[in-house]
Amino acid sequence: MRLSILGGTGDIGAGLALRWAKDTEHEILVGSRDPARAREKANEYAETLASRGFVATIKGFENGMAADRGDVVVLAIPPYHIRDTLEAVRDRLGDAIVVTPAVGLKRNDVGARYHPPDVGSVTAFVQQLVPDGTPVVGTYHNLPAARLADLDAELDLDTPIVADDEDAKATVVALTDAIEGLRPIDTGPIANAAEVESVTALLLSIVMNNDDMHDIGVRFV
Amino acid sequence: MRLSILGGTGDIGAGLALRWAKDTEHEILVGSRDPARAREKANEYAETLASRGFVATIKGFENGMAADRGDVVVLAIPPYHIRDTLEAVRDRLGDAIVVTPAVGLKRNDVGARYHPPDVGSVTAFVQQLVPDGTPVVGTYHNLPAARLADLDAELDLDTPIVADDEDAKATVVALTDAIEGLRPIDTGPIANAAEVESVTALLLSIVMNNDDMHDIGVRFV
Repeated sequence: MRLSILGGTGDIGAGLALRWAKDTEHEILVGSRDPARAREKANEYAETLASRGFVATIKGFENGMAADRGDVVVLAIPPYHIRDTLEAVRDRLGDAIVVTPAVGLKRNDVGARYHPPDVGSVTAFVQQLVPDGTPVVGTYHNLPAARLADLDAELDLDTPIVADDEDAKATVVALTDAIEGLRPIDTGPIANAAEVESVTALLLSIVMNNDDMHDIGVRFV
Repeated sequence: MRLSILGGTGDIGAGLALRWAKDTEHEILVGSRDPARAREKANEYAETLASRGFVATIKGFENGMAADRGDVVVLAIPPYHIRDTLEAVRDRLGDAIVVTPAVGLKRNDVGARYHPPDVGSVTAFVQQLVPDGTPVVGTYHNLPAARLADLDAELDLDTPIVADDEDAKATVVALTDAIEGLRPIDTGPIANAAEVESVTALLLSIVMNNDDMHDIGVRFV
């Protein structure tokens, strides 16, 4: 499969690109609004992997081209760029599965609030914006980005997964299970997305109130 | 200390009574609207502990009497009984710390929605209803009730704790830390409560969508 990560140059995108490249045989496409930046980051990830003895296929493209080529397209972008990005690439999604890890948050001095769009969750918002029939899967919201991108760091984390399309969900469950230390948790339909996304705000509040906790994720045990 | 658990006859209340009786020296007061029922359950808990070789002081009282005597008063009651119960006992709280584990939920066939009161969280709702100066602490929302009440079950779980009063929070953190297998997580002020309470809905959605997961809690790692 070809896994395209729009916004694959930063934050959670880097971690997904590196982990999938390390733990699977799939081709990784790093997307960015700036294709030069995408290629630069793709090379950087490939070098990181090569230095550890992993051979990976990672290429950089402008977001639209990455969307066009991907079997799975991850929107690893801030929530306020989702509408713009999807308007720019929606006609190029074809039969791709769209994966959304974005969360609407408002931070203050003592914690973070979950701040969903009016439709109830970012995942539902993405579902509204994609073409009819494009399956949307919500997951990876609660993963610590820096730890995900540090291939020396153990994950041992869970990631809830919501989707209305069971085939698409099964594909993303398998892709997630392929990443060492990550356990996909079927959390039902997109109607359940708000409580998944909300955990990201909780994790931030915990980090802000505990000097000894950082880059944390969640386990359901 | 005297730890009063209003609604201590069922659900999360039974587990807290048993665990505190087992793991601390504190006196446990089981509260119920029906004092006979409270005494019956208190005896049952004491017998459960005695059969395992633990000597515990557990007494049953009508909720108002339990509130009157408690240094810590846990509202282990459904959210729709919080207003009635607090109106009935608020004049008897004295200097007690009020602890609220309740969550507003709406279930359907595929999951659960977090459904907070207008003030934003059940914890904030409780803070509105107690007398001025009564400290409120929100925690224990995300604990699996049956597992908590099964003294053979290992917990190894986290419980986020929110409060605006730092002394009250420290007291409840210590009481929580005293329960074997439970780790209190300072999650800041009551303004952060919604995202804590919301996790309970997520846990229900996960259980409803995974036959092999039940009676689960959460770990932040």
